[in-house]
This record gives sequence, C-alpha cells and structure tokens, in this order.
Amino acid sequence: MNKRFVTFLPAGVKVEVDPGTDLLTAAGKADIEIKAPCGGDGTCGKCAVHIKSGAAKARRDSHLAARLAEKGFNLACQTLVQDEDLVVEIPKTSAMSKHQVLVDHHQVNSGMSEALSNYLLHVWQLKELFLEKQESPLNGYPLNPLCRRIRLTLPVANLQDNRDDLNRLTLALKKETKCTDINISLAIIRNLGEILRAAHFKVTVLLSEVGGKAEVIAVEPGHGHQPLYGLAVDIGTTTVVAYLLDLEKGRVIDTAGTHNRQARFGDDVISRIVYAVDETDGLKTIHQCIIDTINTLIMDLLVKQRQIKESDIRVIMTAGNTTMAHLFLGINPKFIRLEPYIPTANFFPVVKAQEVGLRVNPDALVFSYPSVASYVGGDIVSGTLFTGMGNADAPISLLIDIGTNGEMVLGSGDWLVTCSCSAGPAFEGSGITYGMRAMHGAIERLEIDPQTYEVSYTTINNGKPIGICGSGLINCLAKLRRTGIIDRAGKFQTSLSTERMRIGETGPEYVLVWRDDTDLDRDIVISEADVKNLLRAKGAVFAGIRSLLNVVGFELESIETIYVAGGFGNYLNIPDAITIGLLPDIPIEKYKYVGNTSAKGACMALLSQEAWMEANSLAGKMTYIELSVGNLFMDEFVSSLFIPHTDLTLFPNVSL
Amino acid sequence: MNKRFVTFLPAGVKVEVDPGTDLLTAAGKADIEIKAPCGGDGTCGKCAVHIKSGAAKARRDSHLAARLAEKGFNLACQTLVQDEDLVVEIPKTSAMSKHQVLVDHHQVNSGMSEALSNYLLHVWQLKELFLEKQESPLNGYPLNPLCRRIRLTLPVANLQDNRDDLNRLTLALKKETKCTDINISLAIIRNLGEILRAAHFKVTVLLSEVGGKAEVIAVEPGHGHQPLYGLAVDIGTTTVVAYLLDLEKGRVIDTAGTHNRQARFGDDVISRIVYAVDETDGLKTIHQCIIDTINTLIMDLLVKQRQIKESDIRVIMTAGNTTMAHLFLGINPKFIRLEPYIPTANFFPVVKAQEVGLRVNPDALVFSYPSVASYVGGDIVSGTLFTGMGNADAPISLLIDIGTNGEMVLGSGDWLVTCSCSAGPAFEGSGITYGMRAMHGAIERLEIDPQTYEVSYTTINNGKPIGICGSGLINCLAKLRRTGIIDRAGKFQTSLSTERMRIGETGPEYVLVWRDDTDLDRDIVISEADVKNLLRAKGAVFAGIRSLLNVVGFELESIETIYVAGGFGNYLNIPDAITIGLLPDIPIEKYKYVGNTSAKGACMALLSQEAWMEANSLAGKMTYIELSVGNLFMDEFVSSLFIPHTDLTLFPNVSL
Ligand code: FES
Ligand SMILES: [Mg+2]
Ligand SMILES: [Mg+2]
Repeated sequence: MNKRFVTFLPAGVKVEVDPGTDLLTAAGKADIEIKAPCGGDGTCGKCAVHIKSGAAKARRDSHLAARLAEKGFNLACQTLVQDEDLVVEIPKTSAMSKHQVLVDHHQVNSGMSEALSNYLLHVWQLKELFLEKQESPLNGYPLNPLCRRIRLTLPVANLQDNRDDLNRLTLALKKETKCTDINISLAIIRNLGEILRAAHFKVTVLLSEVGGKAEVIAVEPGHGHQPLYGLAVDIGTTTVVAYLLDLEKGRVIDTAGTHNRQARFGDDVISRIVYAVDETDGLKTIHQCIIDTINTLIMDLLVKQRQIKESDIRVIMTAGNTTMAHLFLGINPKFIRLEPYIPTANFFPVVKAQEVGLRVNPDALVFSYPSVASYVGGDIVSGTLFTGMGNADAPISLLIDIGTNGEMVLGSGDWLVTCSCSAGPAFEGSGITYGMRAMHGAIERLEIDPQTYEVSYTTINNGKPIGICGSGLINCLAKLRRTGIIDRAGKFQTSLSTERMRIGETGPEYVLVWRDDTDLDRDIVISEADVKNLLRAKGAVFAGIRSLLNVVGFELESIETIYVAGGFGNYLNIPDAITIGLLPDIPIEKYKYVGNTSAKGACMALLSQEAWMEANSLAGKMTYIELSVGNLFMDEFVSSLFIPHTDLTLFPNVSL
Repeated sequence: MNKRFVTFLPAGVKVEVDPGTDLLTAAGKADIEIKAPCGGDGTCGKCAVHIKSGAAKARRDSHLAARLAEKGFNLACQTLVQDEDLVVEIPKTSAMSKHQVLVDHHQVNSGMSEALSNYLLHVWQLKELFLEKQESPLNGYPLNPLCRRIRLTLPVANLQDNRDDLNRLTLALKKETKCTDINISLAIIRNLGEILRAAHFKVTVLLSEVGGKAEVIAVEPGHGHQPLYGLAVDIGTTTVVAYLLDLEKGRVIDTAGTHNRQARFGDDVISRIVYAVDETDGLKTIHQCIIDTINTLIMDLLVKQRQIKESDIRVIMTAGNTTMAHLFLGINPKFIRLEPYIPTANFFPVVKAQEVGLRVNPDALVFSYPSVASYVGGDIVSGTLFTGMGNADAPISLLIDIGTNGEMVLGSGDWLVTCSCSAGPAFEGSGITYGMRAMHGAIERLEIDPQTYEVSYTTINNGKPIGICGSGLINCLAKLRRTGIIDRAGKFQTSLSTERMRIGETGPEYVLVWRDDTDLDRDIVISEADVKNLLRAKGAVFAGIRSLLNVVGFELESIETIYVAGGFGNYLNIPDAITIGLLPDIPIEKYKYVGNTSAKGACMALLSQEAWMEANSLAGKMTYIELSVGNLFMDEFVSSLFIPHTDLTLFPNVSL
C-alpha cells in the first residue's frame, strides 16, 4: 500500500502513514500530542483539528462531529487519511503543550518557557508560606539508602584457603551486613573471578538490603569511589516527575517533569485500562509509553548533570496509582475497573532496570511503591509516609490528593482508613467547555463585579486567555455564587440583566471573556452543565471525607491537620475551596500544602531503608473503604451537591 | 572475499568457507567432528586428514606435520583453505563417531548402529552381575520432586474480600506449603488476573520448593492434569547424557546420550578453559556448544516421546565437573586452571531455562549440582549421594570415577575426603599411539600366547580393529607384563625373539595387529612410550587412593566397598585393574560397579527434595585434599609407577 504524507501545523512536522490511519495516531507518530481525554472515542471533542489541504474521510457520523464540521473542524481521532496527502492545523485548544508539572524544591520543568518558569517559581514561593521548610528529602528518617556501597578486602585465595570466589564474597558480605539471605545474580557471578583479582581481592559491592534480605547490584574492583545515584519517580496519570538523588549525601541533585505519554490513550486511568485491554498489543504499547516517558526524563536529567552517567544510576523507586504501577510493570490492569475492582497486585516485585527497559544501569533495581487497593495506590501510601500521619503519636489528620480521583487517608498512629471517590476530571479541565490544565493562557483567578456583573481575571503567564484551569474554576464557582449568578444548587439566574448571561447550545451559560479579548475565535463561557459537573466533582470529594469520618465515628472537628497534596492541590485556594464546599470548614491554619507527596515519599524510601519498610507497613495497615458498597457515600454525595452543602451547620463560617 | 567450497568425504558434506579457514573449523561448520584432543594446537596429531583434490596451505611447519605429510596426511587444524575448493577425506581414525555413551537402564544412544546397541546391551547385562538391582531412580529417597503441582481453590474475590490476586494466591500457597518465602516472577504476575478468573479461582500452581523457600514456575487455570516432566543431565567432558523423568510417577521415561560438542575445542577440561579464556568470544561459543548439545538431546527425547511437549519440561537438574558447570552457565572458568585453582563458584544459582537458552519451558528452573573444588565437581557429589556412602551409619568406602581425571571420595557417615589426580586421558585413548574411545573396531580384550607371543583379540562390535580402547589397554598392559614382554617398570624386553617386537619411530614397540588384519593401512602397535603413559595414568589413580588413606590414617583393608563409577568404569575389568596396580588388591566382592552415578544422582535430586538437600549438604561436608601441596602424593606416585607397585606387600594376590 502506498504511504501518504501528513504535515502538522504549526509545528510543520511531516509523517508518512498508511491510508486509513486516523489523524490522532498520525500525530502520535509525529510525536505531536493532541488532547484526547476520551481516548479517541469521538466523544470528548477535544481533538478538533483543521484540515488545510487534502481530503480526508470521517470514520462515522456523529452529532459532535457535525457540530464541529460546521465550524470547519474535524475530530482527529475520527478522521482517516485517504488517497491524498494532508496538511493539518492543530489549534491551540487541542494541542497538549508542556504544561505545569509540579516539581518541588523550586525546580521547574526544563521544557517550559522562561516566563512560565518564573510564574511557577512565584506561585511556589506563595505556597511555601503554608509549607514547613523541608530542607532534607529524608524528612526525619535516617540516611540509610536502599543501595549502598560496601568496601571489602577479602582474604587472598591460596592453596590453603581455596574457597571458591562466590563463597568468599558471600561470607564477607554476611559478616558485614548481618543479612543471612544474599542474592547474587548469574550475570554478576559470570565474571566474578576477574573482578576479585583485578585489585587483589579488594572489591566494592553495591548492595540493596531490605529487612534481612540483600541483593547484590554490582561488584567492582578496588576501593574507588564509584558514583551512586538513585532516581525517584512519581508516575502520575497526567504528569511524571523524576528526582535524581545522590544516595550518599542524601540529597536531591536535580529534577525533571513532563506529561505522561500515555495521555494520547485518554486522560484517566479508565481509558488507559480500556486501551490496554481492548487493543491489540495495547498493554505492550501503553507500558512502553510510560517507560519512554521516564527514559526521556532520565535523558533530560543526564543532559543537565553531565558528570553523571546512565550506568551510575543504580536504583529506582517509583510511586504511582495502582493502574500506573500495573502499566509500568506491564501487568494486565483489566480487573481494576471491573467489579469487585481487584488489582492483580498491591505489592510489586523488585525487578532489574533491563527487565522493563529503563535506560539506567541495566542491573539497577527498580522498586515500586505498594498500593492499598485498585483506587488507592502507591502515590497515596507514599504521601501518607511523607506526612508522618501514621507515626506512633500522630493525632487524627486527613491527607487529601485531588486529581481525577479524589483519594484521601484519614487516621492517626493507631488506625488509617482510606478511600477514593471518582471526582472526575473536572478540576483538570476535562468535561468543562473551556476547562484546561494549568498552562499558558489559563484563567486562574477572576472577579465579578456584583453590580455590573463585569468580569476581570488573571491568567497564567499573563497570556491572552484560552480557557480556565482547575483553581480558576473553583474560584469562578465561588464568585458566581457570591454574586448570585447561580443559586445554591448551581442553577443559573437567567433573568439577570447582563448580556453575559445567555442561552447557549447546551443551555444557560455565562460569558467570562469576550471573543476579542481571547486568543481564540470565540467567547469563553461557563455553562450550567459545567457548573453541575463541578458540583459533582466537589461533592464527591466532600462526601468521601464525610464517609471516612462516619466509618470511624469522628466529626470534622476531630481533624487536627488536613494535608493537601498533589499538583492541583498546590494551586488550590483553600478559602475558595471551603466556600464551595469542596473542603471542610475548619480553621485555615489546620491546612497544610504538602506538594507532590508521591515524589517526596519516593525520595524518602530511596534514601532510607527504614522509610521503605515503614511504607510497606503502612500499605498493609491502611483499611480501604469501598464507597460503592452500601448507601453511606451516596447519601453524603447527594447532600454535597449544593453550595456549600445542604447542611449549612457544617459550614458555619461560610455565608453566601 | 570470495568463499571456497570444502567437501568432506566419506560423508559427502560440502561447506562454504572464507579462504584462511582451517579444515578443523570448516569441518565443525559442516557439523562433522574431527578428533582434536589438543584443541587444535597441532600437537596431538589426531586430526590427520587426506586432501584428495585442491591445494591448501600449512599454518606452520612442525615435525609432526612433516611426518604425517610423508604418509599423505595433513593436520586439519593446521591446514588452511586457500584459493581453491577442496575435497578432504577424513580417515576413520580421525573421525569422531557417535561412540559408546553410557546410558543406564538398558537404554542406548539413539544414534548408534543396531549392532553397537546390541553389544552395549550385552556388556550391560554382564555388568549387571556386579550391580545391585536399582529398580527405582529414587534409590531409597522419598518421592518428593523438585517441582510439584498444587491444586488450589481460592476464595472468590468480591467487594467484601477484595484482596489483590497476588496476595490471595500467595497466602493460599503459604498455607499449603508451609513455605514463608514464596517468589513469583513478574512474568507470571503479569497475567495472573486472567488466569485466576479463567476457571473461577481454581488454579494449579507448579512450584519448586527447597528448604522453606519456594519459586512458582507456572500458574495455570483449573485443576487439569498438566504434564510435569523433568530432565536430569550428566554433563560429561566427553559425553552428555539426558534422562527424561516423569516427576509424578518418579520414573525414568527415556534417555539419550551424545558426545559433548565442545570436544572440537579439545578433549580435556584444560583445553576447554584455554579456548574459553584465550579466544575472542571463546566463553560464549563454548557455552553455546554445551547448550546446543543438550538441546539436541532434548529434541531426540521429544521425537521419541511424541506425547510430551517441550513446554511440559519444567525443571532441569545438571551434574558435571566444575569446569562443565562453569561453561554450562557461562561463568568464566579462567582461574580453575591457575594456581591456587579456585573456581568462581561451587554452589550455583538456580536459573530459568530461557536465561541459558535450553529449549524446554522457558520458565523451567535449572539446577546445577554443587561442586567441592576446581577438580572435584558436581558429578562426584552426585555420585557420592547415589552410593549413600555419606549416610549416617555407612562404613568406610571409596568412590572412584576414572576419566581424564581420576576423582575419588573416601569416607563414611562421619567424614568424607576427596581428591582428584590428573590421570591424564590415556585410558580414554589419548596420548596412546593407537588409543581410541570404546567404539566400533576398538580392541577391548586380547590374549598373548606366552610361548609364541602371538596375539588374539576381540573388538567392539566385532569390527576390524582400528585401535585399542581403555579397557583393552589395561588388559593389554596386564598381558604384556604376564608374558614378560615388559618388566615391572614398563621397559620392553627388546631381545625377545618375535618379529612383533621392534624398534619404531619413538623407540621399542610391540605389534598387536598386523596391517592386513586391520581396517587401517598400517600395523597396530603399542610402544614403550605408550606403556609409560599408561603407568603414569594408573599410578596417579593408585597414589590418589593412598594419599586419601594417609590423610585420614586408614589402610587399604579398612575399605568395605569400592564403588567404580563412570563410563569407563563400567567396562573396566577389575582383576586386570588390580593386576596392573590401578586398583587396590582387596577382595573382588568388595567392588561394585555403579554406572553413571553422576546422572543417577541427578535423577535422585530431581525426584526428591530430600536428596537434593542431602546433595548440598554433602558438597559442604566433603574435605578437598589438594594433592599438589606437599610431597604426600608425589612419593606415592613414584612408588606406583611400577607394576603393580614398588611395595609388593600392597598386592599380596598379584603374582607376575
Ligand atoms: S473526540 Fe477525539 S479524542 Fe475525544
Ligand atoms: Mg499524583
Ligand atoms: Mg562423568
């Protein structure tokens, strides 16, 4: 079959594809990522592109496609290359730009524009006010890394002491480590004879030691100072962040973040699972995507830190949700999304880097944070470790990580309960007409004049507005309510005398930015349907919190600290969140932004065996509450669909 | 560079090679094996071939090459292909035929001629007189194979019991096995979810369990009767024998044997080590050779047993000398041959079949018998297990395996000492002018008329004689001495009035078969140099026995049983061996032929965890005596260079 060329604008990248290929796949081949939250199902409409030359064909007709076609757009996922070469323009709204990835310690994504970096730095410094100063990534644990260097001077072999090399080494290691179970792989044994003799039986062993069991990672001649680095990776559904650590000094050297390349198969874990399960080689492809993503970060880091070589990275710790952990290791995730929602594994085997294809030392050990259940993953366990909320004398506190799912942990030194509520991706901009991730041109705060109903706003990077990001949406909701534009149930006051209030395609909508002020060719609006989506999202989170409290028989007031974690959490305005009833109405001093706790806990585990053991013990100790069982959650959810709640006594300080 | 063709006769096989390739390598490419005991060094002269057409070039001049050239022969290893195609005839004496491989239980090499098979059967039945009937390969141990099938009915997952799949399985296995340490590889975990659900949480687990630690080999849906076979392999330097076992019934199904393909790199372990260490990719090549050899046997077995599939073989146990074990696993053997003779490992890691490239189930576990020292290997440990000589109440006995090296173990339930003496390959026909392996046309017994000095003989398979095999050589030595043709020091009585006694190229020699009666174009002789070689070989073995006895302070009479093991041992005539002073002069009833104990012990370990644990404990318990330290051995050796010995009181029943 003859190939056709597709040229993507504005990048100007040209790829050769077979006729019949859809444009979303073609863009993927060109390494251009188009938004596709529905995973290419033709239902989200986010992948709209404009065909500037050449004729293409629609896979099938749909209402959505027809509506877009009127405006001169095609759904990339539903448009197939035919006999002609194509030139395709990707509008800003459909392009997935390098977006705001949360990297702590004032580090920012190397791929970002300088202006954006400055913005992030600024935001970060504000957030720092809420953060305890965390100078050391150890966070109180002793420095005792998962991989350490042991220098041995073995007795020299002779006719009297003619023990074999492996025995000689193993005995010395047992003495040195107190481990009784030491594993040395065949690959290392194969050339052990030469290595022991290269420096007259002086060797340096790199060893990973956990709970009395040890794995030898490398044996090298002499007592030189072999570099010893580790990588902590937070594998988020949306973004992936890697921390390069000096295991001996116990510090972070550098960080890098990017979006998860799996995004082209859908925004949420469900679309990823569907792709992995339903497509031919789906699991293999999507597994490779996350490996490629991490390899890109490794490359980024090693380009920045030229003195460090690929082979110097000897150990990797990953933390991610349960689905991400499955996909990272190539484990079939099918049953995560089918009732009764059982993951294949919560505790994962330690593997070698070469087994999964990570481009560090091929013999590097790769650890994966343990999960608790299908929807409470290693990222949450990692966060729990970081907060110390499970420590012996810790008071009752709540950890909350709002992303596509809202995951939370409630507990103290004695007990820990956890749950996940499908908040949906509204706070990430998905399912909201002009919702978008926190990137250039996103509205993040706005004011509505209570008299004139005019809107003023600030955008990320001061770009011309193209949409609203999550924190902008929460702020917007608070303002819409405060000005009476919507009622407590989210209904629009259509009688309002402003031309901003109008009836759009899907019902009532409010114009936030007029077309001429945008970087788009239309008005930016928020619709009643959008508001309903947002209420469902915030209601799910609050109902989750209430459900956990109910299970253990405590009230909101019992909570001493609420840790707000995650990329989104960092940009969340707490008073706004309380105003709309997303977060509990407790004194603001009790809130702590804790940043990317998934990554921070991964760093801790890499640097401290004690932390890693504690993480495993936490995962075993956390009681998972399945919210879909019984009516507990549903009742709470329905009451939470109001602003702030049906029961106003829960929000004594909120007056709207 | 243009290729040239080399055609090998009598097989008629043609190969294409680059000019500059030597004929030994060319033959290897054609899968024709030419004898090369010196490893292609041009010193043994066994690889002589006849170039029938085309001109070739000698690598270098040598006395040996010149002598052969006179007779129209070239050394294959020293002759290089030039600009012309060649036709090369391989004389019978240089060809490595499928030779007599020792397979017990009346099984014979599938590649042998029927006549030869019958011969072996005949020999075997004779030997049976000396053998206790060994009906079961278990040899007294309980049937408790290294890999067993466990059928589990797991509690079905539901919203109340929502443990992850791996945990569900592991807990059930722990309960079932009492193992606390159960390893399940990522490869198995990857699809565990589907497997558990394929038959509603009924699964069959194949598990290998040793000393409280278990490794899951496979998890399969349902409670079907998955086939469960194992392979025991004796990796000899010369021959490799494989036993296919039904692990559940505890019996041998079939066996196959062939020669070790590494033979083209030399006859003894030293030449193999030299090749592995000195040649580019030598270790890789020679490792692949033994893997290929075993894969051929597996294919042979599976062709014969059509109902059994490659993937049904789930576990492999190998036993071989220390060098073979290193090469089998691809471990650098370099230091085995350098003082102080240290192997890289005596206890070897368990690996997966796919790691070494064996063509059975890729996840099959491959166990290697532990060694004691560089020159006392797993084959001897395996033999020690088989004899039961280390059992609690066992009396003092001696195990002796005469091959290229003479390895022996002396001991009882309380102690075991072991050594290896470089007997050299004389008994295998190497270094003896007309020495050969026990194959078609080899003289195995002869009579010399004490009056006429005429010689009568019998050959293997009744073929026309082409040489003398090991047992023939020992018999010959006894006869030469008995008739006074040689004196006690092995000196020829050149004054003897028979034309069979003459001075040959290397000194005195005795004609055993006149040219016309042979299948060669010359007389078959034994020379004084040959006799000296044989005396050194037998002297080394006897000195080894005496040295071990000296170390522990016992006399020959203390030995209750002498176990004679190994391929050669089976064809050894004990009275002849006593007569020449190779074996101690103790009552013949105390001798037991035990056959291929290396393979038998491997079968035992496969079928019984208890046997395998005992094998490991034996390897740890055996005290290795290094004969090259001190004068103990040397003094004994010098006294043993006579027939039967300088000290005739040691051989009260031998009168020559
Ligand atoms: S409609 Fe194309 S990706 Fe969602
Ligand atoms: Mg996260
Ligand atoms: Mg042997």
